[in-house]
Amino acid sequence: MLKRVVVVTGIPGTGKTTVCNVAVKLAEQTGKKINVVNYGSIMVEISQKRDKSLHRDALRKSGLAFQRNLQARAARIISKKAVAVNGDLIVDTHMSIKTASGYWAGLPFHVLQLLNPDMFVLVEAEPHEILSRRHKDKSRKRDKVLEDEIMEEILFSRLMAAACAVLTGASIKMVDNPTGKQAEAAREVLKLLV
Amino acid sequence: MLKRVVVVTGIPGTGKTTVCNVAVKLAEQTGKKINVVNYGSIMVEISQKRDKSLHRDALRKSGLAFQRNLQARAARIISKKAVAVNGDLIVDTHMSIKTASGYWAGLPFHVLQLLNPDMFVLVEAEPHEILSRRHKDKSRKRDKVLEDEIMEEILFSRLMAAACAVLTGASIKMVDNPTGKQAEAAREVLKLLV
Amino acid sequence: MLKRVVVVTGIPGTGKTTVCNVAVKLAEQTGKKINVVNYGSIMVEISQKRDKSLHRDALRKSGLAFQRNLQARAARIISKKAVAVNGDLIVDTHMSIKTASGYWAGLPFHVLQLLNPDMFVLVEAEPHEILSRRHKDKSRKRDKVLEDEIMEEILFSRLMAAACAVLTGASIKMVDNPTGKQAEAAREVLKLLV
Repeated sequence: MLKRVVVVTGIPGTGKTTVCNVAVKLAEQTGKKINVVNYGSIMVEISQKRDKSLHRDALRKSGLAFQRNLQARAARIISKKAVAVNGDLIVDTHMSIKTASGYWAGLPFHVLQLLNPDMFVLVEAEPHEILSRRHKDKSRKRDKVLEDEIMEEILFSRLMAAACAVLTGASIKMVDNPTGKQAEAAREVLKLLV
Repeated sequence: MLKRVVVVTGIPGTGKTTVCNVAVKLAEQTGKKINVVNYGSIMVEISQKRDKSLHRDALRKSGLAFQRNLQARAARIISKKAVAVNGDLIVDTHMSIKTASGYWAGLPFHVLQLLNPDMFVLVEAEPHEILSRRHKDKSRKRDKVLEDEIMEEILFSRLMAAACAVLTGASIKMVDNPTGKQAEAAREVLKLLV
Repeated sequence: MLKRVVVVTGIPGTGKTTVCNVAVKLAEQTGKKINVVNYGSIMVEISQKRDKSLHRDALRKSGLAFQRNLQARAARIISKKAVAVNGDLIVDTHMSIKTASGYWAGLPFHVLQLLNPDMFVLVEAEPHEILSRRHKDKSRKRDKVLEDEIMEEILFSRLMAAACAVLTGASIKMVDNPTGKQAEAAREVLKLLV
């Protein structure tokens, strides 16, 4: 049985987690088992466990070193999971993370070496749809500046995905997820796992 | 004598192979020897030899592992060739390969480490010219959607080339190859090898 | 005390060096020590020292090997400096360098491994402002072709920055530096070092 690691990414508002969950359900309907793990949730779990037994040494480390360590631990847990489960494993995570201090790679090289992914999926959507999903409750206007910012986020995800593809040899598939078409998007992901 | 490895790439329809061949001929006219090897052809050769003595182990491997292995063997053969030949070696290959399962890196990191290239050339052309070269025989209309797809292919080649440049320290030169100007494009490649 | 390595880059005409120097002065006013080192100057210094005792072996090496060696030596000096100084170190350098032979990575992988940066800053500006700064003395017209070339340079800096971010796990912050707003740009850099 093939045990591929498929990394599914998307900026906030693209609906990547929904696509992942719909893909699992659709696969089940055809008697196929697909597993999903959320990278961020694993990091939170580790972080909480660590809080109880936090060493002073860890505290002295810079923020980046701490983050790297946490990312690496999560990657090791996920790669063990990939071996343990029956069937393919979808890793629900981010390719690029926009913060006040800039763009961060969700999958830096040291993580890629541990995860050993077979393919990358970039769930994408139109900027105006992403904005509307991010600000569901607010009737805010969607201006050009905000849409340009979203386009920049999408661009950086693609840029980092290209670097990930060169580093690992894994493929990059962009999957469009327009409103109301989650099932179609999920089926596109499943087609990669035939 | 300098024995540089120049990786010449281009998406289908850019005319990269023609540019390579014209470059070799133009170089010969000035008494200079330039060698060309086609990465894909070497992969096919290895693949055909292997078919005869195919081990069960190889078959059990996943598609990606098999592909990686084939790519690495081709890279080793080419890097030996680069040492054996007199003069520079042009490697005719793809930077990014578009398939139904997404974009693949033609030169993943493990291949770059074996090839050790000195420069990357991206042969490019206008989207409408690429479309017309791809569908020579059909009088199909060239619509916006198709041109956008070509522009995405060109973009991913550039994205992956940037990653290759950072990984290796080699340079990236974009060479435009408009219809009827193959000699000019070839001369641009030769200028890199002065 | 935190000793972060912040790599500040920008294509010629973005005013990155001014931004670095203003940042140091503004930091001093608040009693904070920030150090700056110019990567290119270190390379020139090494190159001049070497000229006196140049070995034949070095001469026989290809240009790329020589350049790699020089880059690595500079990176080692800078990483020692990062440990020796009090406070953070700004490395003033280029992400991507445009030459007649194409784009070169200012921070290839082997350099990144030595520098071990915590963040990358891309100082950017509008193409027409960059053109005007590059050609201060000439009353040349700023045509579309030149602006497109500048946009391509900015693009390649971003592409290479994304690869650097994936390789190192460090963040990428784009800082806009419009004419007359160097202090604001410098403050944005300082905000990253809080």
